[in-house]
Amino acid sequence: MNWVAIDWGTTNVRFWLMSEEGNIVSTKASPMGMNRIKKDQYEDHLLANIGEWFEPSDSIQVIACGMVGAANGWVEAMYQKVPCEPISNEKITKAPTGFPSLDVRIIPGIANYSPNHDVLRGEETQICGFLTENPDFEGVLCLPGTHTKWVEIKSGLVMGFRTFMTGELFDVLGKSSILRHSIDSNSWDENEFMSAIEVSLSKPEELTTRLFSIRAESLIGDLKTDMASARLAGLLLGSELAGSKSYWEQNRVVIIGSGQLAKNYYDGLIVTSTKSEIINSESCTLKGLIQTKNNSR
Amino acid sequence: MNWVAIDWGTTNVRFWLMSEEGNIVSTKASPMGMNRIKKDQYEDHLLANIGEWFEPSDSIQVIACGMVGAANGWVEAMYQKVPCEPISNEKITKAPTGFPSLDVRIIPGIANYSPNHDVLRGEETQICGFLTENPDFEGVLCLPGTHTKWVEIKSGLVMGFRTFMTGELFDVLGKSSILRHSIDSNSWDENEFMSAIEVSLSKPEELTTRLFSIRAESLIGDLKTDMASARLAGLLLGSELAGSKSYWEQNRVVIIGSGQLAKNYYDGLIVTSTKSEIINSESCTLKGLIQTKNNSR
Repeated sequence: MNWVAIDWGTTNVRFWLMSEEGNIVSTKASPMGMNRIKKDQYEDHLLANIGEWFEPSDSIQVIACGMVGAANGWVEAMYQKVPCEPISNEKITKAPTGFPSLDVRIIPGIANYSPNHDVLRGEETQICGFLTENPDFEGVLCLPGTHTKWVEIKSGLVMGFRTFMTGELFDVLGKSSILRHSIDSNSWDENEFMSAIEVSLSKPEELTTRLFSIRAESLIGDLKTDMASARLAGLLLGSELAGSKSYWEQNRVVIIGSGQLAKNYYDGLIVTSTKSEIINSESCTLKGLIQTKNNSR
Repeated sequence: MNWVAIDWGTTNVRFWLMSEEGNIVSTKASPMGMNRIKKDQYEDHLLANIGEWFEPSDSIQVIACGMVGAANGWVEAMYQKVPCEPISNEKITKAPTGFPSLDVRIIPGIANYSPNHDVLRGEETQICGFLTENPDFEGVLCLPGTHTKWVEIKSGLVMGFRTFMTGELFDVLGKSSILRHSIDSNSWDENEFMSAIEVSLSKPEELTTRLFSIRAESLIGDLKTDMASARLAGLLLGSELAGSKSYWEQNRVVIIGSGQLAKNYYDGLIVTSTKSEIINSESCTLKGLIQTKNNSR
Protein backbone atom coordinates (compact mmCIF):
# COMPACT_ATOMS: atom_id res chain seq x y z
CA MET A 1 0.00 0.00 0.00
CA ASN A 2 1.33 3.45 -0.89
CA TRP A 3 2.03 5.81 2.00
CA VAL A 4 3.05 9.46 2.45
CA ALA A 5 6.36 10.86 3.71
CA ILE A 6 6.40 14.52 4.77
CA ASP A 7 9.08 17.04 5.69
CA TRP A 8 6.96 19.82 7.24
CA GLY A 9 9.28 22.70 8.04
CA THR A 10 9.02 26.27 9.25
CA THR A 11 8.51 27.87 5.85
CA ASN A 12 7.47 25.09 3.51
CA VAL A 13 6.32 21.50 3.17
CA ARG A 14 7.45 18.60 1.01
CA PHE A 15 5.11 15.63 0.39
CA TRP A 16 6.25 12.33 -1.16
CA LEU A 17 3.90 9.54 -2.23
CA MET A 18 5.93 6.39 -1.54
CA SER A 19 5.45 2.79 -2.59
CA GLU A 20 5.54 -0.03 -0.03
CA GLU A 21 9.07 -0.81 -1.31
CA GLY A 22 10.29 2.73 -0.58
CA ASN A 23 10.25 4.16 -4.09
CA ILE A 24 9.01 7.68 -4.88
CA VAL A 25 5.69 7.51 -6.77
CA SER A 26 4.89 11.23 -6.80
CA THR A 27 5.86 14.46 -5.01
CA LYS A 28 4.25 17.77 -4.06
CA ALA A 29 5.35 20.93 -2.30
CA SER A 30 3.48 23.66 -0.44
CA PRO A 31 4.47 27.00 1.08
CA MET A 32 2.25 26.36 4.13
CA GLY A 33 5.04 25.82 6.65
CA MET A 34 4.51 26.02 10.41
CA ASN A 35 4.81 29.82 10.24
CA ARG A 36 1.72 30.15 8.05
CA ILE A 37 -0.67 27.56 9.40
CA LYS A 38 -2.74 27.11 12.55
CA LYS A 39 -2.95 23.97 14.67
CA ASP A 40 -6.45 23.06 13.44
CA GLN A 41 -5.60 23.56 9.75
CA TYR A 42 -2.97 20.84 9.37
CA GLU A 43 -5.34 17.96 8.58
CA ASP A 44 -7.27 19.92 5.95
CA HIS A 45 -4.09 21.15 4.33
CA LEU A 46 -2.65 17.65 4.31
CA LEU A 47 -5.75 16.13 2.72
CA ALA A 48 -6.00 18.94 0.17
CA ASN A 49 -2.50 18.02 -1.00
CA ILE A 50 -2.45 14.23 -0.81
CA GLY A 51 -6.19 13.49 -1.37
CA GLU A 52 -5.78 12.94 -5.12
CA TRP A 53 -3.23 10.19 -4.41
CA PHE A 54 -5.86 7.95 -2.69
CA GLU A 55 -9.38 6.58 -3.05
CA PRO A 56 -11.93 7.67 -0.41
CA SER A 57 -11.98 4.13 1.02
CA ASP A 58 -8.17 3.90 1.40
CA SER A 59 -6.39 3.91 4.71
CA ILE A 60 -3.65 6.51 4.56
CA GLN A 61 -0.47 6.22 6.55
CA VAL A 62 1.68 9.33 6.96
CA ILE A 63 5.14 9.72 8.52
CA ALA A 64 6.17 13.34 9.10
CA CYS A 65 9.20 15.13 10.50
CA GLY A 66 10.04 18.77 11.15
CA MET A 67 8.32 21.71 12.80
CA VAL A 68 4.95 19.99 12.40
CA GLY A 69 5.93 18.38 15.73
CA ALA A 70 6.85 21.63 17.51
CA ALA A 71 4.80 23.09 20.36
CA ASN A 72 3.22 25.45 17.81
CA GLY A 73 2.84 22.72 15.16
CA TRP A 74 0.09 20.15 14.63
CA VAL A 75 0.82 18.29 17.85
CA GLU A 76 3.91 18.49 20.04
CA ALA A 77 6.20 15.50 19.61
CA MET A 78 8.23 15.81 22.82
CA TYR A 79 12.01 15.99 22.44
CA GLN A 80 14.17 12.98 23.15
CA LYS A 81 17.23 13.68 25.28
CA VAL A 82 20.80 12.85 24.29
CA PRO A 83 22.38 10.36 24.24
CA CYS A 84 19.74 8.67 22.08
CA GLU A 85 19.10 7.00 18.78
CA PRO A 86 18.21 9.68 16.22
CA ILE A 87 14.66 8.25 16.09
CA SER A 88 13.14 5.91 18.69
CA ASN A 89 10.04 4.13 17.50
CA GLU A 90 8.24 4.39 20.85
CA LYS A 91 8.68 8.19 20.97
CA ILE A 92 6.81 8.81 17.73
CA THR A 93 3.67 10.89 18.31
CA LYS A 94 0.27 10.27 16.73
CA ALA A 95 -1.46 13.42 15.47
CA PRO A 96 -5.18 13.86 16.22
CA THR A 97 -7.21 13.43 13.02
CA GLY A 98 -10.90 13.77 12.24
CA PHE A 99 -10.74 11.51 9.18
CA PRO A 100 -10.69 8.01 10.76
CA SER A 101 -8.62 6.18 8.18
CA LEU A 102 -5.88 8.82 8.24
CA ASP A 103 -2.98 7.78 10.45
CA VAL A 104 -0.33 10.50 10.98
CA ARG A 105 2.86 9.84 12.96
CA ILE A 106 5.22 12.67 13.83
CA ILE A 107 8.91 12.18 14.59
CA PRO A 108 10.18 14.03 17.69
CA GLY A 109 13.23 16.29 17.81
CA ILE A 110 16.16 15.96 20.18
CA ALA A 111 17.14 18.10 23.17
CA ASN A 112 20.58 18.64 24.63
CA TYR A 113 21.15 20.16 28.09
CA SER A 114 24.94 20.32 28.19
CA PRO A 115 27.11 22.39 27.80
CA ASN A 116 24.08 24.55 26.91
CA HIS A 117 20.42 24.08 26.20
CA ASP A 118 19.99 23.15 22.57
CA VAL A 119 17.34 21.62 20.33
CA LEU A 120 17.00 20.14 16.87
CA ARG A 121 13.90 19.06 14.97
CA GLY A 122 13.96 17.61 11.46
CA GLU A 123 17.69 16.95 11.50
CA GLU A 124 17.13 13.75 13.56
CA THR A 125 15.45 12.28 10.47
CA GLN A 126 18.40 13.19 8.23
CA ILE A 127 20.77 11.68 10.80
CA CYS A 128 18.65 8.52 10.93
CA GLY A 129 18.69 8.30 7.13
CA PHE A 130 22.46 8.75 7.04
CA LEU A 131 23.05 6.12 9.73
CA THR A 132 20.74 3.67 7.94
CA GLU A 133 23.26 3.64 5.11
CA ASN A 134 26.34 4.11 7.32
CA PRO A 135 25.52 2.12 10.47
CA ASP A 136 29.15 2.00 11.65
CA PHE A 137 29.81 5.73 11.28
CA GLU A 138 31.56 7.38 14.23
CA GLY A 139 32.42 11.04 14.01
CA VAL A 140 30.75 14.36 13.42
CA LEU A 141 27.84 15.35 11.24
CA CYS A 142 27.48 18.99 10.19
CA LEU A 143 23.97 19.93 9.03
CA PRO A 144 24.11 23.44 7.55
CA GLY A 145 20.97 25.56 7.52
CA THR A 146 19.36 28.64 9.04
CA HIS A 147 20.49 27.09 12.32
CA THR A 148 23.44 24.84 11.58
CA LYS A 149 23.86 21.73 13.74
CA TRP A 150 27.14 20.03 14.68
CA VAL A 151 26.35 16.54 15.91
CA GLU A 152 28.56 13.92 17.54
CA ILE A 153 27.72 10.32 16.59
CA LYS A 154 28.99 7.24 18.42
CA SER A 155 27.71 3.64 18.36
CA GLY A 156 24.64 4.71 16.37
CA LEU A 157 23.70 7.30 19.00
CA VAL A 158 23.46 11.08 18.98
CA MET A 159 25.86 11.88 21.85
CA GLY A 160 25.49 15.68 21.79
CA PHE A 161 25.17 18.65 19.46
CA ARG A 162 25.41 22.41 19.20
CA THR A 163 23.52 24.86 17.01
CA PHE A 164 25.02 28.00 15.45
CA MET A 165 22.77 30.82 14.22
CA THR A 166 25.10 31.59 11.30
CA GLY A 167 22.51 31.28 8.51
CA GLU A 168 19.92 33.41 10.26
CA LEU A 169 22.55 36.03 11.16
CA PHE A 170 23.54 36.30 7.49
CA ASP A 171 19.90 36.70 6.62
CA VAL A 172 18.88 39.31 9.22
CA LEU A 173 22.09 41.33 8.90
CA GLY A 174 21.81 41.36 5.11
CA LYS A 175 18.16 42.38 5.17
CA SER A 176 17.56 44.39 8.34
CA SER A 177 20.86 45.95 9.45
CA ILE A 178 22.95 48.79 8.05
CA LEU A 179 24.88 46.14 6.10
CA ARG A 180 21.91 45.83 3.72
CA HIS A 181 23.24 48.92 1.93
CA SER A 182 26.61 47.24 1.32
CA ILE A 183 25.85 43.66 0.32
CA ASP A 184 24.20 41.83 -2.52
CA SER A 185 23.22 38.35 -1.38
CA ASN A 186 23.09 37.14 -4.98
CA SER A 187 26.75 37.75 -5.77
CA TRP A 188 29.90 36.16 -4.45
CA ASP A 189 33.68 36.42 -4.29
CA GLU A 190 35.23 33.11 -3.26
CA ASN A 191 38.68 34.50 -2.38
CA GLU A 192 37.14 37.09 -0.10
CA PHE A 193 34.99 34.38 1.52
CA MET A 194 37.99 32.17 2.26
CA SER A 195 40.12 34.97 3.66
CA ALA A 196 37.26 36.24 5.86
CA ILE A 197 36.88 32.72 7.31
CA GLU A 198 40.58 32.66 8.13
CA VAL A 199 40.49 36.07 9.84
CA SER A 200 37.39 35.31 11.87
CA LEU A 201 38.60 31.83 12.84
CA SER A 202 41.75 33.34 14.32
CA LYS A 203 40.06 36.39 15.90
CA PRO A 204 36.47 35.42 16.70
CA GLU A 205 36.31 38.15 19.36
CA GLU A 206 36.45 40.74 16.58
CA LEU A 207 33.33 39.48 14.81
CA THR A 208 31.05 42.42 15.62
CA THR A 209 33.63 45.08 14.80
CA ARG A 210 34.59 43.39 11.53
CA LEU A 211 30.91 43.27 10.61
CA PHE A 212 30.71 47.06 10.91
CA SER A 213 33.93 47.38 8.94
CA ILE A 214 32.11 45.89 5.93
CA ARG A 215 29.89 48.98 5.94
CA ALA A 216 32.81 51.34 6.53
CA GLU A 217 34.89 49.84 3.72
CA SER A 218 32.02 50.17 1.28
CA LEU A 219 31.79 53.86 2.27
CA ILE A 220 35.45 54.88 2.32
CA GLY A 221 37.17 51.99 0.54
CA ASP A 222 36.40 50.13 -2.65
CA LEU A 223 34.53 47.14 -1.27
CA LYS A 224 32.11 45.91 -3.92
CA THR A 225 28.79 44.23 -3.03
CA ASP A 226 29.95 40.77 -4.13
CA MET A 227 33.02 40.99 -1.90
CA ALA A 228 30.90 42.38 0.95
CA SER A 229 28.41 39.47 0.83
CA ALA A 230 31.20 36.92 0.75
CA ARG A 231 32.99 38.65 3.61
CA LEU A 232 29.82 38.74 5.73
CA ALA A 233 29.29 35.01 5.12
CA GLY A 234 32.97 34.26 5.75
CA LEU A 235 33.19 36.23 9.00
CA LEU A 236 30.10 34.47 10.35
CA LEU A 237 31.27 31.01 9.26
CA GLY A 238 34.77 31.62 10.63
CA SER A 239 33.26 32.49 14.00
CA GLU A 240 31.19 29.29 13.88
CA LEU A 241 34.24 27.20 13.01
CA ALA A 242 36.13 28.74 15.94
CA GLY A 243 33.24 27.82 18.24
CA SER A 244 32.76 24.31 16.84
CA LYS A 245 36.45 23.39 16.91
CA SER A 246 35.92 20.54 19.38
CA TYR A 247 33.60 18.97 16.82
CA TRP A 248 35.72 19.13 13.66
CA GLU A 249 39.16 18.87 15.22
CA GLN A 250 40.58 15.38 14.80
CA ASN A 251 37.24 14.04 13.62
CA ARG A 252 35.78 12.62 10.48
CA VAL A 253 33.22 15.22 9.33
CA VAL A 254 30.28 14.49 7.05
CA ILE A 255 28.25 17.48 5.84
CA ILE A 256 24.58 16.64 5.31
CA GLY A 257 23.40 19.43 3.06
CA SER A 258 23.09 20.59 -0.50
CA GLY A 259 24.00 23.33 -2.97
CA GLN A 260 26.11 26.38 -2.26
CA LEU A 261 25.54 26.29 1.49
CA ALA A 262 26.99 22.78 1.85
CA LYS A 263 29.90 23.78 -0.40
CA ASN A 264 30.56 26.82 1.83
CA TYR A 265 30.98 24.54 4.84
CA TYR A 266 33.16 22.16 2.83
CA ASP A 267 35.36 25.11 1.80
CA GLY A 268 35.37 26.50 5.32
CA LEU A 269 36.60 23.20 6.70
CA ILE A 270 39.44 23.29 4.16
CA VAL A 271 40.63 26.50 5.90
CA THR A 272 40.92 24.41 9.09
CA SER A 273 42.71 21.62 7.15
CA THR A 274 39.76 19.31 7.82
CA LYS A 275 38.71 16.98 5.05
CA SER A 276 34.97 16.48 4.80
CA GLU A 277 32.43 15.00 2.42
CA ILE A 278 28.96 16.16 1.42
CA ILE A 279 25.93 13.86 1.52
CA ASN A 280 22.65 15.11 0.05
CA SER A 281 20.28 16.19 2.81
CA GLU A 282 16.97 15.58 1.03
CA SER A 283 18.02 12.05 0.28
CA CYS A 284 18.88 11.56 3.97
CA THR A 285 15.50 12.97 5.04
CA LEU A 286 13.66 10.57 2.77
CA LYS A 287 15.73 7.58 3.91
CA GLY A 288 15.01 8.53 7.52
CA LEU A 289 11.26 8.72 6.85
CA ILE A 290 11.36 5.33 5.04
CA GLN A 291 13.32 3.76 7.89
CA THR A 292 10.76 5.09 10.37
CA LYS A 293 7.89 3.70 8.28
CA ASN A 294 9.59 0.29 8.13
CA ASN A 295 10.19 0.25 11.89
CA SER A 296 6.57 1.21 12.61
CA ARG A 297 5.05 -1.84 10.93
CA MET B 1 23.45 87.29 18.01
CA ASN B 2 21.65 84.00 18.71
CA TRP B 3 22.64 81.02 16.59
CA VAL B 4 21.48 77.41 16.08
CA ALA B 5 23.23 74.18 17.09
CA ILE B 6 21.96 70.95 15.51
CA ASP B 7 22.56 67.25 16.06
CA TRP B 8 21.01 65.77 12.90
CA GLY B 9 21.15 62.00 13.21
CA THR B 10 19.89 58.98 11.31
CA THR B 11 16.49 58.80 12.97
CA ASN B 12 15.90 62.18 14.59
CA VAL B 13 17.05 65.79 14.90
CA ARG B 14 17.76 68.03 17.87
CA PHE B 15 17.77 71.84 17.46
CA TRP B 16 19.10 74.26 20.10
CA LEU B 17 18.73 78.02 19.91
CA MET B 18 21.92 79.30 21.55
CA SER B 19 22.95 82.71 22.82
CA GLU B 20 26.24 84.29 21.77
CA GLU B 21 27.60 83.34 25.20
CA GLY B 22 26.78 79.64 24.69
CA ASN B 23 23.62 79.38 26.77
CA ILE B 24 20.55 77.43 25.66
CA VAL B 25 17.70 79.82 24.78
CA SER B 26 15.24 77.27 23.39
CA THR B 27 15.17 73.71 22.01
CA LYS B 28 13.20 71.66 19.47
CA ALA B 29 13.23 68.08 18.21
CA SER B 30 12.03 66.48 14.99
CA PRO B 31 11.75 62.87 13.82
CA MET B 32 13.01 63.82 10.33
CA GLY B 33 16.39 62.12 10.58
CA MET B 34 18.53 61.34 7.52
CA ASN B 35 16.52 58.16 6.92
CA ARG B 36 13.30 60.10 6.33
CA ILE B 37 14.40 63.15 4.39
CA LYS B 38 15.71 63.87 0.89
CA LYS B 39 18.74 65.99 0.03
CA ASP B 40 16.66 68.90 -1.24
CA GLN B 41 14.32 68.97 1.78
CA TYR B 42 16.89 69.84 4.45
CA GLU B 43 16.74 73.60 4.10
CA ASP B 44 12.92 73.73 4.17
CA HIS B 45 12.77 71.41 7.16
CA LEU B 46 15.39 73.46 8.98
CA LEU B 47 13.59 76.76 8.38
CA ALA B 48 10.23 75.25 9.33
CA ASN B 49 11.70 74.39 12.72
CA ILE B 50 13.92 77.37 13.51
CA GLY B 51 12.06 80.11 11.58
CA GLU B 52 10.07 81.27 14.60
CA TRP B 53 13.32 81.93 16.48
CA PHE B 54 14.35 84.72 14.04
CA GLU B 55 13.10 87.81 12.23
CA PRO B 56 13.00 87.65 8.41
CA SER B 57 15.84 90.16 8.21
CA ASP B 58 18.14 88.21 10.56
CA SER B 59 21.28 86.45 9.45
CA ILE B 60 21.14 82.90 10.79
CA GLN B 61 24.23 80.92 11.63
CA VAL B 62 23.89 77.16 12.04
CA ILE B 63 26.46 74.58 13.19
CA ALA B 64 25.38 70.97 12.59
CA CYS B 65 26.87 67.56 13.22
CA GLY B 66 25.76 63.98 12.48
CA MET B 67 24.41 62.17 9.45
CA VAL B 68 23.37 65.47 7.86
CA GLY B 69 26.97 65.43 6.58
CA ALA B 70 26.88 61.87 5.19
CA ALA B 71 26.95 61.13 1.46
CA ASN B 72 23.16 60.70 1.62
CA GLY B 73 22.69 63.74 3.87
CA TRP B 74 22.35 67.43 2.99
CA VAL B 75 25.89 67.75 1.68
CA GLU B 76 28.78 65.38 2.18
CA ALA B 77 31.28 66.65 4.75
CA MET B 78 34.28 64.51 3.79
CA TYR B 79 35.84 62.42 6.55
CA GLN B 80 39.05 63.52 8.24
CA LYS B 81 41.64 60.77 8.64
CA VAL B 82 43.22 59.73 11.92
CA PRO B 83 45.35 60.89 13.63
CA CYS B 84 43.49 64.21 13.75
CA GLU B 85 41.84 66.70 16.04
CA PRO B 86 38.22 65.66 16.59
CA ILE B 87 37.12 68.76 14.63
CA SER B 88 39.36 70.82 12.35
CA ASN B 89 37.97 74.24 11.54
CA GLU B 90 39.19 74.17 7.92
CA LYS B 91 37.42 70.84 7.21
CA ILE B 92 33.96 72.15 8.08
CA THR B 93 31.66 72.04 5.06
CA LYS B 94 29.21 74.76 4.02
CA ALA B 95 25.79 73.47 3.00
CA PRO B 96 24.17 74.95 -0.15
CA THR B 97 21.23 77.19 0.83
CA GLY B 98 18.68 79.13 -1.19
CA PHE B 99 17.95 81.60 1.60
CA PRO B 100 20.94 83.99 1.34
CA SER B 101 21.24 84.97 4.99
CA LEU B 102 21.20 81.33 6.18
CA ASP B 103 24.72 80.06 6.83
CA VAL B 104 24.94 76.32 7.59
CA ARG B 105 28.23 74.64 8.52
CA ILE B 106 28.46 70.87 8.80
CA ILE B 107 31.08 69.09 10.88
CA PRO B 108 32.80 66.16 9.11
CA GLY B 109 33.19 62.66 10.55
CA ILE B 110 36.45 60.76 10.93
CA ALA B 111 37.79 57.77 8.97
CA ASN B 112 40.20 55.10 10.14
CA TYR B 113 41.98 52.74 7.75
CA SER B 114 43.88 50.53 10.17
CA PRO B 115 43.59 47.80 11.38
CA ASN B 116 40.28 47.90 9.46
CA HIS B 117 38.21 50.44 7.62
CA ASP B 118 36.07 52.31 10.10
CA VAL B 119 34.07 55.54 10.26
CA LEU B 120 32.38 57.75 12.80
CA ARG B 121 30.12 60.77 12.31
CA GLY B 122 28.58 62.75 15.16
CA GLU B 123 30.85 61.25 17.81
CA GLU B 124 33.68 63.63 16.75
CA THR B 125 31.56 66.47 18.15
CA GLN B 126 31.06 64.68 21.47
CA ILE B 127 34.79 63.99 21.63
CA CYS B 128 35.53 67.65 20.88
CA GLY B 129 33.12 68.71 23.61
CA PHE B 130 34.70 66.33 26.11
CA LEU B 131 38.24 67.48 25.25
CA THR B 132 37.21 71.13 25.53
CA GLU B 133 36.61 70.48 29.21
CA ASN B 134 39.39 67.89 29.63
CA PRO B 135 42.18 69.16 27.35
CA ASP B 136 44.84 66.98 28.97
CA PHE B 137 42.90 63.73 28.81
CA GLU B 138 44.87 60.74 27.52
CA GLY B 139 43.17 57.37 27.36
CA VAL B 140 40.14 55.76 25.85
CA LEU B 141 36.65 57.07 25.19
CA CYS B 142 33.80 54.60 24.81
CA LEU B 143 30.74 56.03 23.03
CA PRO B 144 27.89 53.50 23.31
CA GLY B 145 25.15 53.51 20.71
CA THR B 146 23.67 51.54 17.85
CA HIS B 147 27.28 51.38 16.66
CA THR B 148 29.50 51.76 19.71
CA LYS B 149 32.86 53.49 19.23
CA TRP B 150 36.08 52.86 21.18
CA VAL B 151 38.40 55.81 20.63
CA GLU B 152 42.03 56.29 21.59
CA ILE B 153 42.92 59.89 22.56
CA LYS B 154 46.45 61.22 22.88
CA SER B 155 47.72 64.82 22.92
CA GLY B 156 44.27 66.11 22.00
CA LEU B 157 44.16 63.92 18.90
CA VAL B 158 41.97 61.00 17.86
CA MET B 159 44.65 58.35 17.28
CA GLY B 160 42.38 55.51 16.14
CA PHE B 161 39.04 53.86 16.86
CA ARG B 162 36.94 50.79 16.28
CA THR B 163 33.18 50.38 15.97
CA PHE B 164 31.18 47.41 17.30
CA MET B 165 27.67 46.67 15.98
CA THR B 166 26.49 45.50 19.40
CA GLY B 167 23.47 47.82 19.69
CA GLU B 168 22.20 47.10 16.20
CA LEU B 169 22.70 43.35 16.70
CA PHE B 170 20.59 43.48 19.87
CA ASP B 171 17.95 45.33 17.93
CA VAL B 172 17.77 43.16 14.79
CA LEU B 173 18.09 39.87 16.69
CA GLY B 174 15.39 40.91 19.14
CA LYS B 175 13.03 42.07 16.41
CA SER B 176 13.78 40.01 13.30
CA SER B 177 15.33 36.69 14.37
CA ILE B 178 13.89 33.61 16.05
CA LEU B 179 15.01 35.16 19.37
CA ARG B 180 12.07 37.60 19.11
CA HIS B 181 9.87 34.80 20.49
CA SER B 182 12.06 34.49 23.60
CA ILE B 183 12.94 38.02 24.65
CA ASP B 184 11.20 41.09 25.98
CA SER B 185 13.36 44.16 25.37
CA ASN B 186 11.52 46.08 28.10
CA SER B 187 12.52 43.77 30.94
CA TRP B 188 15.85 43.02 32.52
CA ASP B 189 17.73 40.72 34.90
CA GLU B 190 21.00 42.30 36.03
CA ASN B 191 22.58 39.09 37.38
CA GLU B 192 21.93 37.29 34.12
CA PHE B 193 23.40 40.26 32.21
CA MET B 194 26.62 40.21 34.23
CA SER B 195 27.11 36.46 34.01
CA ALA B 196 26.46 36.47 30.23
CA ILE B 197 29.14 39.15 29.82
CA GLU B 198 31.59 37.01 31.74
CA VAL B 199 30.85 33.90 29.66
CA SER B 200 31.06 35.69 26.34
CA LEU B 201 34.20 37.60 27.31
CA SER B 202 35.99 34.33 28.04
CA LYS B 203 34.55 32.40 25.05
CA PRO B 204 33.77 34.93 22.33
CA GLU B 205 34.01 32.17 19.70
CA GLU B 206 30.80 30.68 21.11
CA LEU B 207 28.72 33.81 20.56
CA THR B 208 26.53 32.50 17.73
CA THR B 209 25.84 29.16 19.41
CA ARG B 210 25.04 30.78 22.75
CA LEU B 211 22.64 33.11 20.95
CA PHE B 212 20.68 30.10 19.69
CA SER B 213 20.80 28.56 23.14
CA ILE B 214 18.68 31.47 24.40
CA ARG B 215 15.89 30.19 22.15
CA ALA B 216 16.48 26.57 23.13
CA GLU B 217 16.46 27.33 26.85
CA SER B 218 13.18 29.21 26.54
CA LEU B 219 11.74 26.12 24.80
CA ILE B 220 13.08 23.29 26.98
CA GLY B 221 14.30 25.11 30.08
CA ASP B 222 12.78 27.79 32.25
CA LEU B 223 14.38 30.89 30.75
CA LYS B 224 12.04 33.85 31.26
CA THR B 225 11.87 36.77 28.85
CA ASP B 226 13.60 39.20 31.23
CA MET B 227 16.53 36.82 31.67
CA ALA B 228 16.62 36.16 27.92
CA SER B 229 16.86 39.89 27.04
CA ALA B 230 19.59 40.45 29.58
CA ARG B 231 21.48 37.38 28.37
CA LEU B 232 21.26 38.53 24.74
CA ALA B 233 22.61 41.97 25.71
CA GLY B 234 25.29 40.41 27.92
CA LEU B 235 26.51 37.93 25.31
CA LEU B 236 26.82 40.70 22.72
CA LEU B 237 28.56 43.11 25.11
CA GLY B 238 30.91 40.37 26.35
CA SER B 239 31.93 39.68 22.77
CA GLU B 240 32.54 43.42 22.23
CA LEU B 241 34.64 43.65 25.40
CA ALA B 242 36.71 40.68 24.23
CA GLY B 243 37.30 42.41 20.90
CA SER B 244 38.01 45.84 22.41
CA LYS B 245 40.43 44.55 25.05
CA SER B 246 43.38 46.52 23.66
CA TYR B 247 41.34 49.69 24.29
CA TRP B 248 40.22 49.18 27.89
CA GLU B 249 43.14 47.13 29.14
CA GLN B 250 45.46 49.28 31.24
CA ASN B 251 43.71 52.45 30.15
CA ARG B 252 41.64 55.16 31.71
CA VAL B 253 38.16 54.73 30.18
CA VAL B 254 35.52 57.45 29.97
CA ILE B 255 32.07 56.45 28.73
CA ILE B 256 30.33 59.25 26.85
CA GLY B 257 26.70 58.21 26.94
CA SER B 258 23.51 58.29 28.96
CA GLY B 259 20.84 56.21 30.63
CA GLN B 260 20.70 52.43 30.81
CA LEU B 261 23.00 51.90 27.84
CA ALA B 262 25.88 53.84 29.41
CA LYS B 263 25.29 52.00 32.69
CA ASN B 264 25.47 48.66 30.84
CA TYR B 265 28.95 49.54 29.57
CA TYR B 266 29.99 50.75 33.02
CA ASP B 267 28.81 47.42 34.50
CA GLY B 268 30.42 45.44 31.70
CA LEU B 269 33.75 47.10 32.36
CA ILE B 270 33.44 46.10 36.03
CA VAL B 271 33.48 42.47 34.83
CA THR B 272 36.89 43.20 33.30
CA SER B 273 37.99 44.95 36.52
CA THR B 274 38.20 48.25 34.64
CA LYS B 275 37.08 51.37 36.44
CA SER B 276 35.31 53.86 34.20
CA GLU B 277 33.24 57.02 34.53
CA ILE B 278 30.19 58.22 32.62
CA ILE B 279 29.97 61.68 31.07
CA ASN B 280 26.65 62.81 29.60
CA SER B 281 26.71 62.56 25.81
CA GLU B 282 24.20 65.29 24.97
CA SER B 283 26.14 67.75 27.07
CA CYS B 284 29.33 66.77 25.17
CA THR B 285 27.57 67.21 21.81
CA LEU B 286 26.42 70.70 22.74
CA LYS B 287 29.87 71.70 24.06
CA GLY B 288 31.41 70.45 20.81
CA LEU B 289 28.97 72.49 18.72
CA ILE B 290 29.63 75.60 20.86
CA GLN B 291 33.39 75.11 20.57
CA THR B 292 33.05 74.82 16.79
CA LYS B 293 30.96 77.99 16.65
CA ASN B 294 33.56 79.84 18.72
CA ASN B 295 36.41 78.62 16.50
CA SER B 296 34.58 79.65 13.33
CA ARG B 297 34.32 83.36 14.23
